[in-house]
Amino acid sequence: MKRVKNFSPGPATLPLAVLEEAQAEFLDYAGSGMSIIEHSHRGKLYDAVHHETIALFHELLGLGDEYKVAFFGGGASTQFALTAMNLLTKDKTADYLVTGSWSKKAVKEAKLFGNVHVAFDPSADGGAFTKVPGSGDCSFSDSPVYVHLTTNNTIAGTQYHTFPECPAPIIADMSSDFLWAPFDPKPFGMIYAGAQKNIGPAGVTVVIIRDDLLEQCNEGLPSMFDYKLQTGKQSLYNTPPVFPIYMVGKTLKWIKGNGGLAGIKERNDKKGALLYDTMAELSDFYRCPVEASSRSMMNVVFRLPTEELEKTFIAEGANNDFMSMRGHRSVGGVRVSIYNAAELGWIEELTAFMRDFAKKHG
Amino acid sequence: MKRVKNFSPGPATLPLAVLEEAQAEFLDYAGSGMSIIEHSHRGKLYDAVHHETIALFHELLGLGDEYKVAFFGGGASTQFALTAMNLLTKDKTADYLVTGSWSKKAVKEAKLFGNVHVAFDPSADGGAFTKVPGSGDCSFSDSPVYVHLTTNNTIAGTQYHTFPECPAPIIADMSSDFLWAPFDPKPFGMIYAGAQKNIGPAGVTVVIIRDDLLEQCNEGLPSMFDYKLQTGKQSLYNTPPVFPIYMVGKTLKWIKGNGGLAGIKERNDKKGALLYDTMAELSDFYRCPVEASSRSMMNVVFRLPTEELEKTFIAEGANNDFMSMRGHRSVGGVRVSIYNAAELGWIEELTAFMRDFAKKHG
Repeated sequence: MKRVKNFSPGPATLPLAVLEEAQAEFLDYAGSGMSIIEHSHRGKLYDAVHHETIALFHELLGLGDEYKVAFFGGGASTQFALTAMNLLTKDKTADYLVTGSWSKKAVKEAKLFGNVHVAFDPSADGGAFTKVPGSGDCSFSDSPVYVHLTTNNTIAGTQYHTFPECPAPIIADMSSDFLWAPFDPKPFGMIYAGAQKNIGPAGVTVVIIRDDLLEQCNEGLPSMFDYKLQTGKQSLYNTPPVFPIYMVGKTLKWIKGNGGLAGIKERNDKKGALLYDTMAELSDFYRCPVEASSRSMMNVVFRLPTEELEKTFIAEGANNDFMSMRGHRSVGGVRVSIYNAAELGWIEELTAFMRDFAKKHG
Repeated sequence: MKRVKNFSPGPATLPLAVLEEAQAEFLDYAGSGMSIIEHSHRGKLYDAVHHETIALFHELLGLGDEYKVAFFGGGASTQFALTAMNLLTKDKTADYLVTGSWSKKAVKEAKLFGNVHVAFDPSADGGAFTKVPGSGDCSFSDSPVYVHLTTNNTIAGTQYHTFPECPAPIIADMSSDFLWAPFDPKPFGMIYAGAQKNIGPAGVTVVIIRDDLLEQCNEGLPSMFDYKLQTGKQSLYNTPPVFPIYMVGKTLKWIKGNGGLAGIKERNDKKGALLYDTMAELSDFYRCPVEASSRSMMNVVFRLPTEELEKTFIAEGANNDFMSMRGHRSVGGVRVSIYNAAELGWIEELTAFMRDFAKKHG
């Protein structure tokens, strides 16, 4: 069986062991004589998958009982609206840190429900998204309900490695770096993450929300969009996206089996370091536009001397089974997405390719 | 490999051929060296799956260009809110036909956004949901924006076989009988269906909406809930639920390969007739509470002489691999869900079991 080196920004590569396991049991889950996708969400076997997956989030993240876990259909874009629908009103304000296209979209959706104060946005005066803010870079409003930020920016290739001091619980869109490394959940009142980068296939978003924020949620919302109702029912109010949740569960078990978040970080650090170190070594040819302290360990972006060379690099890469390395159309360049499931061996091969390419064209 | 006779009301059984095909290509889709769930939704291969699936809806249903197809996360419950969010305001009224728990929930969600006039509801004066309304049973309001109905009621075991004359475009929740038989789309301004009964796994809802209703949709909605935006982008505004859509596409191809909707109806008619005829023949023992003209060809509900016998029937059935025949907890009794993918052979075995059981316990 052919297996390419898939550097797609998402939906992204998944651990081969997870895929193989899902394939092997696809027609007959746990000897039940049905596929997991044919099981009722009210049946014992799916119920076990569902609650085991929720328990794994608690375990891997070290979450106390004050954090509730729920699954939603749609991706982060749906949560851009739901966070504000649940927590804002026309009399309340939330602060947003804008570090790229996705946080900008979050602002747009939130404005439909309440007041948005943008506490950081380099693009407001024409700047580029080359870094994430430190505490000193943010100008917060007086008493925001929450501070919203995007922990990793897939297009700009930036990532928070420390979080700014915030005057309210942080609501974090962690879609593109969720579970990439251990972190302290304390500053976060809510975390949400579309599965399709680090923890599973597209079709489900994990929402983790703390009791103090749940208590502030608005009343009279549509049932499917109501954080209190959905967390209270553990996302079994109606039929959840069974297969995506089942795959998330398997991916969490894979993380656990690989040393948990500490083990995954070690693996991710090696991959990121190898790429950034290779760039540094060949800095006459490869240039990373991101400030050193804000560089993403998930989406490594870089430029070559010319756009022509970038095209050639991406095309020759694809011929060598390095797939989906084109930078986002809004910024160009090269982007290598190396989420949890990307293999160190792929990066070793890629950096060898980068050396050869620089030698040939430099 | 073991394969049970899965009569679950949903998520439900899927065609074995579809499952086998998905399993065979699960690790390497179309020789790409990746699973379909690892493909970017912006890539050529997924794009083809996505648009082929939309085209199959048009083809199987004979839809003109005035009908647009989109995919949403969540199930029908999400659409209960979105139909009203898109089409109602506090100055507008929609009429709802209440034929069971699900249409009742649709009313509840719609009331958050505008005026709801209930044009039929036998439960309002304590009646049971033993039939769906004909034209003479409905008292419509003066000028509703739309009339909402549920084409098949999984709990009550009822189904429309003709639709009442309505004073506005019908919005139909077809989740539990979508594509079970050919039908004329003309009265329908919008159709929506959660996939997990007749057309795929849980995690995606198909929305088909006609231009005249799209033109009436409200402005200023959250992007992910905006019918105009989502149909305009053909559900590629952000990452769609890739795997559920891919499985829906395969299931539609299976329907097409089985004679299209006419062929599927022939198959479904045989299954339903066999069950209802067996009940009629053994009417001293099995009793269907539903009026003859409203009986569902998807969820066949019946009672036995005592609740004790019903329990025994369900338990002995399970011992014989007839799975998930317990009636919904709100009504009790027996329910045999025989969606498109349920095999005629299963019903033949089940009716033989019913005869033996009646003989033994009658």
